Amino acid sequence: MTDREPLSTEPYKGVRDFYPEDWAKMNYAFDIMRTVLRRRGFEEYAASPLERAELYESKTSEEIVNEQTYSFIDRGDRKVTIRPEMTPTLARMVAAKRRELVFPVRWFSIPNVFRYERPQRGRLREHYQLNADILGIADAKADGEIIVIVSDLLRAFGAQDADFSIRINSRTLLSAAAQALGLSVDEVTAYSALLDRKNKMSGADFETERSAFRRSGTDPLELIEAGTNAEVDAELKKLEALIEAFRSHGMTNVVFDPTIVRGFLYYTGIVFEVFDTDPGNNRSLFGGGRYDNLVALFGGEPIPAVGFGMGDVTLIDFLTTHNLLPANITGAPDLFIGTPSEADIAQAQGCAELMRSRDVNTLVNVSGKSLGDQIKEAVRRKIPYFIAYGAQEAESGMVTLKILNDSREESISLDSLAAFITKDK
Amino acid sequence: MTDREPLSTEPYKGVRDFYPEDWAKMNYAFDIMRTVLRRRGFEEYAASPLERAELYESKTSEEIVNEQTYSFIDRGDRKVTIRPEMTPTLARMVAAKRRELVFPVRWFSIPNVFRYERPQRGRLREHYQLNADILGIADAKADGEIIVIVSDLLRAFGAQDADFSIRINSRTLLSAAAQALGLSVDEVTAYSALLDRKNKMSGADFETERSAFRRSGTDPLELIEAGTNAEVDAELKKLEALIEAFRSHGMTNVVFDPTIVRGFLYYTGIVFEVFDTDPGNNRSLFGGGRYDNLVALFGGEPIPAVGFGMGDVTLIDFLTTHNLLPANITGAPDLFIGTPSEADIAQAQGCAELMRSRDVNTLVNVSGKSLGDQIKEAVRRKIPYFIAYGAQEAESGMVTLKILNDSREESISLDSLAAFITKDK
Repeated sequence: MTDREPLSTEPYKGVRDFYPEDWAKMNYAFDIMRTVLRRRGFEEYAASPLERAELYESKTSEEIVNEQTYSFIDRGDRKVTIRPEMTPTLARMVAAKRRELVFPVRWFSIPNVFRYERPQRGRLREHYQLNADILGIADAKADGEIIVIVSDLLRAFGAQDADFSIRINSRTLLSAAAQALGLSVDEVTAYSALLDRKNKMSGADFETERSAFRRSGTDPLELIEAGTNAEVDAELKKLEALIEAFRSHGMTNVVFDPTIVRGFLYYTGIVFEVFDTDPGNNRSLFGGGRYDNLVALFGGEPIPAVGFGMGDVTLIDFLTTHNLLPANITGAPDLFIGTPSEADIAQAQGCAELMRSRDVNTLVNVSGKSLGDQIKEAVRRKIPYFIAYGAQEAESGMVTLKILNDSREESISLDSLAAFITKDK
Repeated sequence: MTDREPLSTEPYKGVRDFYPEDWAKMNYAFDIMRTVLRRRGFEEYAASPLERAELYESKTSEEIVNEQTYSFIDRGDRKVTIRPEMTPTLARMVAAKRRELVFPVRWFSIPNVFRYERPQRGRLREHYQLNADILGIADAKADGEIIVIVSDLLRAFGAQDADFSIRINSRTLLSAAAQALGLSVDEVTAYSALLDRKNKMSGADFETERSAFRRSGTDPLELIEAGTNAEVDAELKKLEALIEAFRSHGMTNVVFDPTIVRGFLYYTGIVFEVFDTDPGNNRSLFGGGRYDNLVALFGGEPIPAVGFGMGDVTLIDFLTTHNLLPANITGAPDLFIGTPSEADIAQAQGCAELMRSRDVNTLVNVSGKSLGDQIKEAVRRKIPYFIAYGAQEAESGMVTLKILNDSREESISLDSLAAFITKDK
């Protein structure tokens, strides 16, 4: 219809197209997330991916603001950022209604978040991320509740405690150690950034960089391990008490790890990361922590807060590694109604309406294909059940149900067909 | 913690924050959409809101491309558009896998779409839009199926046929009339744009502009009404046959309206719009049509296609006008477990785990508030059920269930509590 070159069918670089089978897998994960969070009294919120850019200019990590956000000026001269993470939006929304909301607030959301990743790294520029947060509880009860939810979630996906470990640290502990050694605020920030990069650098490089933070031969990590400073030790005991509480509740995979710091600058208390324990995939899956000062950036008193963000890509990797993703997630309808001849289509559509009214997702053939080809089509569509519906079936009220992934069939009354199929779903 | 001015809590101009109660209403609507479409054998797909800008440069309406898209250059010098509509993405995805997909394709999606609307119009810059499309069926069967789904959807939300009308026209009909009068392609486009603006201008202005398209005293609309041209009449009869088929299936609210054209340039066959029949809200709610040439822009043979897009804002307006939005959509948990004293919290959490394992969304008090204040908190949270759980309840296995929106209570065994609550949900 035009002389121009055909348009490319590629999506924009670094983002994904979700065909129905891909999206069904995502919905499988989203449904489990929603169920686990709602069971625990959490409520779902949402917001636009478009945010005012200033929201990210104070407390997010500098690397993200400077190099990794999508930011642009709109036609009305406003600076817009496409959200790289959800926590600043959450803090903004809670701050906006701090007088009306009932605290503690327990909220979750499953936003898509965007980062301008350099293409060569092969990383995605958009992913989905479950965010769950408790705002309004200052003590360790909320820290504990968040960690329990992390464990509960992975268990709900079928993981065993041996499949993952939750490594906890505390920014307060690290600050106490740094303060005891007389490090400046900037030095603490630089030291945290070094710990955050630890696993991406050689041991020798780490030791070289680390030496800049030693005072009288000791850096904060070594001071924590030495156990010689009373204030540092008091912080460490708090963390050990939390870990002990998990153990007494049967969670044996929560461990103390003083090298966990997390990239964002806004954390103020506990920080944690969840690691896959599979030797071939031994890396951080996701994490979170306490950020008691973020809401106060919007004015008013600080509101204590703790939460985590779990990305879809590492989650699906983890589930795949541990063989936890069910094989039968296709997004396909339940039943294909074939028509012996085109004259049967109207009657088959009536039959389909009955099935739909009984919660069976039903497709009707409207083509002139042979029944054999219709069965092949149902198989290609990964639809598990097939019946042919023509004059004979309409008269007898009996159909032959083909169970396609089993290659078997049975005679069944139309009246009991829907119950048979939905029982299996 | 800083000296800077507090950050604003406002969202970016023209987009919405969805607090849990707002989002629960959206999820109510999304769930109905998903159920209706899946029942009819449609499968859900998704894609990123970031698209290559060229996707919109050929076939979308010019107003949208020039004035209303969010477009920017990324750090890698690529021109990016935040999608203003879903149909070009759908066409791209189908074109990309045209050799693997099983046709006809019946897909739906509920994307957020973005337009840079001028603020003074008070219109939103982001909204959600259900898109449902059938690709691979050239004849009127698919047109009919799409219109039936539109009707089915609104009925699923509780609407009666008297609450809305579906007004159908055909681009083919309009082209036949324009061609019979000798109008050029550009004139047909200009005439379509005039019809599209008809309801936004005075009758006198319409008559003035219309006169430019008269040949021998007749414009296309008048030629269609006159019924004097055989080819125009043949097209009209096809449309009337389709409408008659709906009537014989009990859909009495589908009518022919030759002034319906729709804004997008890519429509090639039927076009339709759904109108609210309420006198106070008599306007177009949403619409769709046939676009047989869009997929071919990506190369290869054309793939016939028909579908519609239904926006959340006009839908919720419609449901509100007709009193169809249930009042009890809050997003709140089902049950609040109060604790007589802080010593009871651990035991109450055990009780909560039991309730959660039985599908009850449960919140436990972890504060030191009095029981009276805990009940008040449950009411403010719009949680429908409350029990107190302490040593006495643990021992007897009996609890006093307060049904908060009824201000009544009853004694019930812990073992039957979950069934009582979920039966009501």
